[in-house]
Amino acid sequence: MTGPALARCGYLGPEGTFSEAAVRTLDLAAGSDLVPYPSVSDALDAVREGEVDGAVVPLENSVEGSVTTTLDELAMGTPLLISREMVLPVSFACLARPGTSLADVTTVTTIPHAEAQVRGWLRRTLPSAAFIPAASTADGARAVRDGEADAAIAAPLAADRYELAVLADDIHDTDGAETRFVLAVPPGGTPPAPTGADRTTVAIFISDDHAGALLEILTEFAVRGVNLTRIESRPTGVAMGRYFFSVDCEGHLADARVGEALSALHRICADVRFLGSYPRIDGTKPEVRRGTGDPDFVDAEEWLRRLRAGEPT
Amino acid sequence: MTGPALARCGYLGPEGTFSEAAVRTLDLAAGSDLVPYPSVSDALDAVREGEVDGAVVPLENSVEGSVTTTLDELAMGTPLLISREMVLPVSFACLARPGTSLADVTTVTTIPHAEAQVRGWLRRTLPSAAFIPAASTADGARAVRDGEADAAIAAPLAADRYELAVLADDIHDTDGAETRFVLAVPPGGTPPAPTGADRTTVAIFISDDHAGALLEILTEFAVRGVNLTRIESRPTGVAMGRYFFSVDCEGHLADARVGEALSALHRICADVRFLGSYPRIDGTKPEVRRGTGDPDFVDAEEWLRRLRAGEPT
Amino acid sequence: MTGPALARCGYLGPEGTFSEAAVRTLDLAAGSDLVPYPSVSDALDAVREGEVDGAVVPLENSVEGSVTTTLDELAMGTPLLISREMVLPVSFACLARPGTSLADVTTVTTIPHAEAQVRGWLRRTLPSAAFIPAASTADGARAVRDGEADAAIAAPLAADRYELAVLADDIHDTDGAETRFVLAVPPGGTPPAPTGADRTTVAIFISDDHAGALLEILTEFAVRGVNLTRIESRPTGVAMGRYFFSVDCEGHLADARVGEALSALHRICADVRFLGSYPRIDGTKPEVRRGTGDPDFVDAEEWLRRLRAGEPT
Amino acid sequence: MTGPALARCGYLGPEGTFSEAAVRTLDLAAGSDLVPYPSVSDALDAVREGEVDGAVVPLENSVEGSVTTTLDELAMGTPLLISREMVLPVSFACLARPGTSLADVTTVTTIPHAEAQVRGWLRRTLPSAAFIPAASTADGARAVRDGEADAAIAAPLAADRYELAVLADDIHDTDGAETRFVLAVPPGGTPPAPTGADRTTVAIFISDDHAGALLEILTEFAVRGVNLTRIESRPTGVAMGRYFFSVDCEGHLADARVGEALSALHRICADVRFLGSYPRIDGTKPEVRRGTGDPDFVDAEEWLRRLRAGEPT
Repeated sequence: MTGPALARCGYLGPEGTFSEAAVRTLDLAAGSDLVPYPSVSDALDAVREGEVDGAVVPLENSVEGSVTTTLDELAMGTPLLISREMVLPVSFACLARPGTSLADVTTVTTIPHAEAQVRGWLRRTLPSAAFIPAASTADGARAVRDGEADAAIAAPLAADRYELAVLADDIHDTDGAETRFVLAVPPGGTPPAPTGADRTTVAIFISDDHAGALLEILTEFAVRGVNLTRIESRPTGVAMGRYFFSVDCEGHLADARVGEALSALHRICADVRFLGSYPRIDGTKPEVRRGTGDPDFVDAEEWLRRLRAGEPT
Repeated sequence: MTGPALARCGYLGPEGTFSEAAVRTLDLAAGSDLVPYPSVSDALDAVREGEVDGAVVPLENSVEGSVTTTLDELAMGTPLLISREMVLPVSFACLARPGTSLADVTTVTTIPHAEAQVRGWLRRTLPSAAFIPAASTADGARAVRDGEADAAIAAPLAADRYELAVLADDIHDTDGAETRFVLAVPPGGTPPAPTGADRTTVAIFISDDHAGALLEILTEFAVRGVNLTRIESRPTGVAMGRYFFSVDCEGHLADARVGEALSALHRICADVRFLGSYPRIDGTKPEVRRGTGDPDFVDAEEWLRRLRAGEPT
Repeated sequence: MTGPALARCGYLGPEGTFSEAAVRTLDLAAGSDLVPYPSVSDALDAVREGEVDGAVVPLENSVEGSVTTTLDELAMGTPLLISREMVLPVSFACLARPGTSLADVTTVTTIPHAEAQVRGWLRRTLPSAAFIPAASTADGARAVRDGEADAAIAAPLAADRYELAVLADDIHDTDGAETRFVLAVPPGGTPPAPTGADRTTVAIFISDDHAGALLEILTEFAVRGVNLTRIESRPTGVAMGRYFFSVDCEGHLADARVGEALSALHRICADVRFLGSYPRIDGTKPEVRRGTGDPDFVDAEEWLRRLRAGEPT
Repeated sequence: MTGPALARCGYLGPEGTFSEAAVRTLDLAAGSDLVPYPSVSDALDAVREGEVDGAVVPLENSVEGSVTTTLDELAMGTPLLISREMVLPVSFACLARPGTSLADVTTVTTIPHAEAQVRGWLRRTLPSAAFIPAASTADGARAVRDGEADAAIAAPLAADRYELAVLADDIHDTDGAETRFVLAVPPGGTPPAPTGADRTTVAIFISDDHAGALLEILTEFAVRGVNLTRIESRPTGVAMGRYFFSVDCEGHLADARVGEALSALHRICADVRFLGSYPRIDGTKPEVRRGTGDPDFVDAEEWLRRLRAGEPT
């Protein structure tokens, strides 16, 4: 295990969310006190204010895309670092109070992101049920328990927490859907050591909206053999057409090619916020292109040093 | 005016939303019957099924980013075309039933996107009020009228519709925030004629998740002098790391450089869905780089034809 | 055989040069009257003036590089087209008048390009012999016959023509050296039909000396999957730093990807002179990258036509 | 003056060549013993063997292009460094023995490169004179003095040395023609200090003939804002299609952007030979692109160091 264990770890609550399921897979949180927070912002603020030692929040979903609050909070809020990622298969169930049957359901509640992932099932199975948006899947389950709706779309584990029955399981429309979660911790201290199968997350703010800025950014990565695994454009809130880019790339800050690429972006962009290097949960090692491994950089730097000193090369 | 007027035009309702404000600025909808729909999907489905001749839905917001349902519906649902865009400044008000003062407010409701844009004001002004998510700003106003919450964050025009009072106006945190709306119409028929200040929207699906696919796509545009004004990566729902790109570029399908760029993408990508060429509401004409104007293409094609025919050039 | 046979074919003479050896391998010159010319310029002028139907001249040598007179004449002289290429292994012999031994040799003559390719042998074998530059290898052989020098470095076949003895054979320093020759013919008429293993030669003149012009040119080829097999920068004679690029690429003018690449260069460059598409003598077929074959272009053009006409795609 | 003065300085002779004119403009050779050598190779060998402290040889001519022997010797011979450049306008005269008139001239001699630059004048003025190639312009003048030809095309200063009369002056076809010379010195010791208006010369050997190698090389320069002022492809002598690139770029080895670009090439290429950083004789300072100046690199490296150390940035 790399990195210190967490005494207290927050997560996007309430109890029974997928975030809780994610934090329960996290090595660093084994034995931690787990603290649910009502929103991503609240969970991250709790880390900033020292209430917890880290917080698990969703970053992206293979069906619904990025969790924009998480991207924006990490990119523009008080700085935090990502030190772990978790990936969970998405498996939705339809929950109701015991005794309710599908035929009884006239209202369905869940967070809109979840609704989008079971829309096909809802149209086929509950075509006339009205949809009531909830703040989270778990909050939907709570609302059903409290009689505010007939059925909730939620993680199966929410059934136990809210004393509900499972009317139907595995109802998501797309097989293989996954959600990626990250552990955000306070900045400072050295990042997790490289494992050889790492990922690095950065937020890149461009100086102006000149066409071609994204092409320049991608070229800085590509020319050094650093592959991207995710790129999202996000508005900065200043004006239409003013973006930052939230980027995941292969490799670790300690890798020479990653370091040089980030330095280059720091030189040419308005701002680059480093958001962490951490082990990939899938353990995939990058294919290091000819001439871009650490020994290649060490050799090239020594060559350059000798040239500059007038020594034989 | 280019394009036929619409007898019936849908919009993202209910009455009093910013989408209604947008549709009221639309030349093609002057005199149209306006029909509110409860969701983006419903509004677009109404066009697909012929209930209305077009529908106005939000596409992106300068603070909150893209409206992902709109992007996904246009890219992956039954095909539609964009034939107009509208841009509206975002101006939020805090509405309550007459007689309510700010000191009385314990619950606030609105669509989460709107809540994000007034969060600073809420923390300063109503720090202890609980937030209740609503399906739209207008639905929040309705909920306040019906006594389900104390205050709603909505467009000022919702006050009239729902017989509410304005407790505070212009409460959004970021000045200059705007929302861009598009008019979606059925495919078929020729696109709006070029005006010289046009925008083109496409959805580009990559064949696989190979690193460098985005760089290739951007290069196809850049090499032909076509500037991008928006690019969003969106998951295709198949697996983490499988994206499509929702792109706006300068120029019109009828422009040679745009046509050749789209053809090139069609050749190298898994799929390219053309989503429309339409006049820019801001009237900005593109800077046409040396060698990329229509006469340059015409001249080059004639030159090539002569070479191939063995005629003097 | 593609293309018409030549009644009269010129070559870079005099008799006994490698150019004569090359023309003797040329299908189109089987049965032709062969006419030697004293210089590349004279041979090409003879084609321009109709004295001969074509002329074989050297274009590049794997040791000495391009034959700049050929490049410059084709790029900037009265237009001609290349319709064939020939490649010959370079094999030099040291020739002298019968009765001369190596020990007797005090002066050696040949064209400087040839001297460069046997310099190692000369330093080892004839370290004290003086070098006298000749206008061609064959002219050096003539000079030896006429008593102007003791030994000539030339093609072995020059021995017969000039009644010389071979003092040493295969004396070139680098194994595998080759010279590539081209057949230049008058422009007009259609180019040789594509064979599937073709090469295309062009001269590309940049508008100004802006840094990055070469990068732009290479990108136009690369983005369309057209590989280059030779690129040379050559001064235009206007000023230091003003270049044209002499380029060979894989494929044929009739190939869609080649045609589009050349059209693009025609659009953005000061001038592009097409110098011919002709069968590769080595028969190497290009690897056609995904999306860049002729059917891909045909399909993409039809797709674009349908989009523009408002037809279903 | 930067760099040590030279006690003895070689040049491409014989006396009266443009190289002698060039060396006479060189600050470092003021007061030096000047030693002519019969060939570029001999002059450079004299530096290698310590006979002279440096040698001046031509590198490129704005009409005839690169002097390939110089490029190849510097790239592939025993290493030397360039520490100065000189640029001379090309001005040719037609010289003959006193008493000879233009009407008497039946044979003209000079080095072929020079003949190419006065070809138009020769065709107009001496259309029936035969051309005899010489080893240098000065050697042509010597040959005329010795009665081996009637007229020589040479630098005006050769008239005095070889006791010839000037039949016609300024006879070159293209105005503004220039030749660039370089001073080659032994390697070792530190390069000349940066002046802010420097040029750097390198020879870049690619690993294989993969299409796209040149594009990669250009991209390494471009991405770091380093502009090229000359690029030549040259065969390596191994096989057709195997090249090295002889490149001049703006800036100095000591500049961060140049150093990083060269390091990158060292990583990805088969070999990079640094051939010197030296003041531009035209004093042109490079336009340093945003984010590529030395302070930008220093700042970015410190930022990276802090990130890696876990310190605040």
